[in-house]
Amino acid sequence: MKVCVVGVGLVGGSIALAARERLGAHVSGYEPDRVAAQRALEMGALDDAPESLGEAVVDAEIAFVAAPLGVLRETVLETLAVAAPGCTVTDVGSTKRAILADDQRFIGGHPLAGGESAGVAHARADLFVDATWYLTPTRTTSGVLYERLHRALTTIGARPTAVDAEVHDRMMAAVSHLPHVVANLLVAQASGVLGGETLPATGPSFRDATRVAGANPALWADIMLANRDALLRSVAEAATGLDELRVLLEAGDVSALYDWQHDAAKQRAALLEAGELGGPTQRLRVAVPNRPGVVAELALKLGGAGINISDLSLTPAPDGTRGEVALWVSTADAPRAGQLIAELGFAVA
Amino acid sequence: MKVCVVGVGLVGGSIALAARERLGAHVSGYEPDRVAAQRALEMGALDDAPESLGEAVVDAEIAFVAAPLGVLRETVLETLAVAAPGCTVTDVGSTKRAILADDQRFIGGHPLAGGESAGVAHARADLFVDATWYLTPTRTTSGVLYERLHRALTTIGARPTAVDAEVHDRMMAAVSHLPHVVANLLVAQASGVLGGETLPATGPSFRDATRVAGANPALWADIMLANRDALLRSVAEAATGLDELRVLLEAGDVSALYDWQHDAAKQRAALLEAGELGGPTQRLRVAVPNRPGVVAELALKLGGAGINISDLSLTPAPDGTRGEVALWVSTADAPRAGQLIAELGFAVA
Repeated sequence: MKVCVVGVGLVGGSIALAARERLGAHVSGYEPDRVAAQRALEMGALDDAPESLGEAVVDAEIAFVAAPLGVLRETVLETLAVAAPGCTVTDVGSTKRAILADDQRFIGGHPLAGGESAGVAHARADLFVDATWYLTPTRTTSGVLYERLHRALTTIGARPTAVDAEVHDRMMAAVSHLPHVVANLLVAQASGVLGGETLPATGPSFRDATRVAGANPALWADIMLANRDALLRSVAEAATGLDELRVLLEAGDVSALYDWQHDAAKQRAALLEAGELGGPTQRLRVAVPNRPGVVAELALKLGGAGINISDLSLTPAPDGTRGEVALWVSTADAPRAGQLIAELGFAVA
Repeated sequence: MKVCVVGVGLVGGSIALAARERLGAHVSGYEPDRVAAQRALEMGALDDAPESLGEAVVDAEIAFVAAPLGVLRETVLETLAVAAPGCTVTDVGSTKRAILADDQRFIGGHPLAGGESAGVAHARADLFVDATWYLTPTRTTSGVLYERLHRALTTIGARPTAVDAEVHDRMMAAVSHLPHVVANLLVAQASGVLGGETLPATGPSFRDATRVAGANPALWADIMLANRDALLRSVAEAATGLDELRVLLEAGDVSALYDWQHDAAKQRAALLEAGELGGPTQRLRVAVPNRPGVVAELALKLGGAGINISDLSLTPAPDGTRGEVALWVSTADAPRAGQLIAELGFAVA
């Protein structure tokens, strides 16, 4: 089997490594950046790296287009133009409607893996193990070519999941792109309010909500534009939500505000229950001195008892001497975890 | 010295414990919930717990009003009505303009401490150690009474910081109340989009941004209403920000979107630099198997080298077998921390 990878960065390089290792494929890479191409060859990610797209894609059964989002659609079209009639062409872009190509060989794709460390140097053959990999087949998609892609993705360890391109983009707008937007709005507002004042550390809600503010401007400008329609809808809904709250606040309606807050609690609980927030977990809050070793002490105690910490957040006091550790463990493990932490002498809630 | 605490829950109880322990004060508590009052007596938080506010406040030099936000203003006024002319009366509410009483004995207060574990059972004498404690004196505030309060707060370990009540409320709206609002909007939208679909775990940006969604509805309905004016202004600014983004998206202006994102990055960096997000730190991202013990291994290695982890977040892969640990350490420690982690055999970025 021959696989072609168009664009050999973190994702393309990882696909190449996985295809060689797990599919036993011959992998040709097309990468205009010759330094990156050379690096990929040296890493053993590619069998060859021709200087033309046509040479790289010839005889390939699957072509993965992993070009930057800003040139992704044109690169998909260029690849389709030179790929054989029986070649599956797919991409790895984080939005899907903007990439849809009206060609039975094309199947949009979006692996939920990667992270921010760009470049082929960070590529790994196991990057996609157990990762959801969205596929957006359309009515014109060839069943044979879809099945081939599905099987290849399963073989490299991923979990292919078919989804309508519009649902995919709407979902990404809601759970990823809008959170990035509001993070930016929050830091902008805080900068305006705090500007000039020397005020102490803000609370954890602010820090958590703004962790992604200003993330990779070039990438995110492209992502927002690529998913423009869905993001505009999300932005409009958020504006409507703000306006609804405005009405409740202006009316001074404490019971309506209670209901509004309570609805959010139910919605969050339902998302947690459905595993959307990473599985049914419970939070334990532990008051600790903020010194080296205290996190280790907690983690070791729980680890030693076979309890996995699925998330952990340390909120220091303003001067950093004390803090609260919030630990998320599975609901089943929570009572035992609480007991173990209490045995260490920390107050746990 | 006699101190009176009006409302003996987590905060009031902790003030009482600290006043007995660190000020050597005689502490009288007024708590309508007699079970809580009894508990506070048994814990040694109070010397006595009279059944009337007048008895509790008689002869007190300072009265701390720690009643629930919904009845805080009326309780402050009731306390002022029975307190002696030379008694400082203060409160601990999270918004300040709504509580302002036009009385030279009154000084608004807001300790940045507490957490969500309500009730006197969680009270501790050291709750306020190194915590910022905002005070909102006005032009009518007596200097002598202010100085007495300031000294008492310093003695129990807090850091009193005078701030204009309006600035305080505006700041809290920006860094705490608005983040809670947008967290609610995000879960509402995600619930709508994901409803009925069984889709995999969402990304860390969503989880982080929605951690506080639906927090304590009764408390938060009161907080939002108590800070209504400032929150309305924050909500209006957020709506304006959404609308500005809408214009950029509709224009399809990639360079303006880049600038918008880049501005947020600069603002976030400035907040970090100013210590608003908890001091100048650097993030290290570590790819790890998500098994019990791995967090301990990292934390121990850094702890053993005297490097403190100021924040830590574990992002599991959808099935929980692998993940990425993000560690925040001081910028000065970052290079050494990276080296130590690499020695453990984990990929670090």
